[in-house]
Amino acid sequence: MAKSLVTGGAGFIGAHVVDSLLQLGHEVVVLDDLSGGFIENVNKKALFIEGSICDDNLINDLFEKHNFDYVYHLAAYAAEGLSHFIRKFNYNNNLMGSINLINASVKHKIKCFVFTSSIAVYGTQVVPMIETATPMPEDPYGVAKYAIELDLKSAHEMFGLDYIVFRPHNVYGSLQNIGDRYRNVIGIFMNQLMKGNPLTVFGDGSQTRAFSYIDDVAPYIAKSVNIPEAYNEVFNIGGDTDYSVKELAETVMKVMGIEGEVRNLEARNEVIHAYADHSKARKVFGITPDTITDLETGLTNMAEWVKMNGVRKTPKFENIEILENLPKVWLED
Amino acid sequence: MAKSLVTGGAGFIGAHVVDSLLQLGHEVVVLDDLSGGFIENVNKKALFIEGSICDDNLINDLFEKHNFDYVYHLAAYAAEGLSHFIRKFNYNNNLMGSINLINASVKHKIKCFVFTSSIAVYGTQVVPMIETATPMPEDPYGVAKYAIELDLKSAHEMFGLDYIVFRPHNVYGSLQNIGDRYRNVIGIFMNQLMKGNPLTVFGDGSQTRAFSYIDDVAPYIAKSVNIPEAYNEVFNIGGDTDYSVKELAETVMKVMGIEGEVRNLEARNEVIHAYADHSKARKVFGITPDTITDLETGLTNMAEWVKMNGVRKTPKFENIEILENLPKVWLED
Repeated sequence: MAKSLVTGGAGFIGAHVVDSLLQLGHEVVVLDDLSGGFIENVNKKALFIEGSICDDNLINDLFEKHNFDYVYHLAAYAAEGLSHFIRKFNYNNNLMGSINLINASVKHKIKCFVFTSSIAVYGTQVVPMIETATPMPEDPYGVAKYAIELDLKSAHEMFGLDYIVFRPHNVYGSLQNIGDRYRNVIGIFMNQLMKGNPLTVFGDGSQTRAFSYIDDVAPYIAKSVNIPEAYNEVFNIGGDTDYSVKELAETVMKVMGIEGEVRNLEARNEVIHAYADHSKARKVFGITPDTITDLETGLTNMAEWVKMNGVRKTPKFENIEILENLPKVWLED
Repeated sequence: MAKSLVTGGAGFIGAHVVDSLLQLGHEVVVLDDLSGGFIENVNKKALFIEGSICDDNLINDLFEKHNFDYVYHLAAYAAEGLSHFIRKFNYNNNLMGSINLINASVKHKIKCFVFTSSIAVYGTQVVPMIETATPMPEDPYGVAKYAIELDLKSAHEMFGLDYIVFRPHNVYGSLQNIGDRYRNVIGIFMNQLMKGNPLTVFGDGSQTRAFSYIDDVAPYIAKSVNIPEAYNEVFNIGGDTDYSVKELAETVMKVMGIEGEVRNLEARNEVIHAYADHSKARKVFGITPDTITDLETGLTNMAEWVKMNGVRKTPKFENIEILENLPKVWLED
């Protein structure tokens, strides 16, 4: 029986990967510091350890104790837009934590290191973004993700550590933390609608994204280790169709059955158009366009879960390092 | 009078930059933890502070106290080949320390952040390497340097922090730490010759590098902040002519006036050919080919200083994280 470590396994994507791995027959250990995840997300069949990937001693103990075959590294604080203002936290949490895991994986000779990077590594590119394009990340979050990708490649060349990198984008679905005010526009919209608040949109909402339903992402991450062609490769994964944030707001209102106003905020410094080419993932994982969940169906499923769980509080991030140019909406109560 | 912070100012390149800045009339504060540098390298006209760029409180205090116009960030542990084996130390020391400085520079609105990156960011490329090429760093040292370059660009876009990036390569000259067994082949050769030991060469010595005399590097770094065209640009800087390591060994023996044997070690995982195009630096800094010091002249100058200072001990790096595939010569006493 394959034994896998899933970091960030109490988070949104991580918890779904855990479920998929258990279905595939893996024995699963979850490591999560519950900074963004929730213990109730973690499948009861997994062993849950509360702790941080930044805790080197804990990581070493875990690798000593469990003889992991695979590491699925999903732990990260994935607030791309906020990362400018929490630079140090971003690199410490996202990069240094990853380095602890890479070092331990080299030393314990695990079979494959699966890493969820992000479409943020691309920066501003010709769309659709394709894996052969040169990454040009534009924010500390994307820089950290890209540095980890490069470090994995280096560890592969020097020590033979096999890896698979996924670059998901704008993933949504059940178990998502809709209470994070800094990330995940769909969750933010749903939470705002339930509270009777206007939907906040940066700029005029013409920026486009292709939103990815969780079932079109997590199962492929889980089973990738069984596919030799995936080893030491990088994959975009997720939804194909791009929507403007304005269109998204309308569809979210429709599936929630709640009419809301849109409140246009000052535009922020962000990539305007971001969606990805998925031909590589299609070929290697046998994904066909008709298996991709359409936005309205995915949002309807998510809305059902969200309504069942109700409004979430949207606490502020403590210890913001730089306040200059911080979007004002993030300072509101 | 311009006030400048020079990190790593007790190190080899840093100490020369300090001298150049003092000549330009800057008031200079040096921050160095003396892990690789020597206090006797630091010009007495500079204010010396012993401490690490990883000490966030110290950095904040320094920026509060001194109203720096410019930051010259040279502090780093620059052992590229060793970085595979000290991954965590590398990112913590080189990347996280830099982030402390970038955050402080944004907050205190300094005028320009001058950063010494490295030719290591290029990885294996068509030579001569040119600034328009896409960096593909192959080791943790190069990955950290490239991440800092990207982070500076991001800080410029978001906060208007101006920067200048230099990518020097294989710099040599007086004040160099010839006792570091992990880096700087010229210093290693000179130290070995003085000890009567054979010159250790990885592989057959056919790998090529263009070696850069310190006077062709440090003065341009120092005066770059006075050149508006240099702002927010990246520059290769250093010697033009590539030599094989085998040829280098012969020239070093010649200038030292000591015959030595060459001991060929197992080839290590490294970039085979690395030298850089300097047309951009020539144009912006007015460098002409005839100002570049030729190898024999530069080595003769360095040999004079080295002989005056004598043999240095070559201590081992404590706390190597991964021993697998470590070149055996690094384990010898």
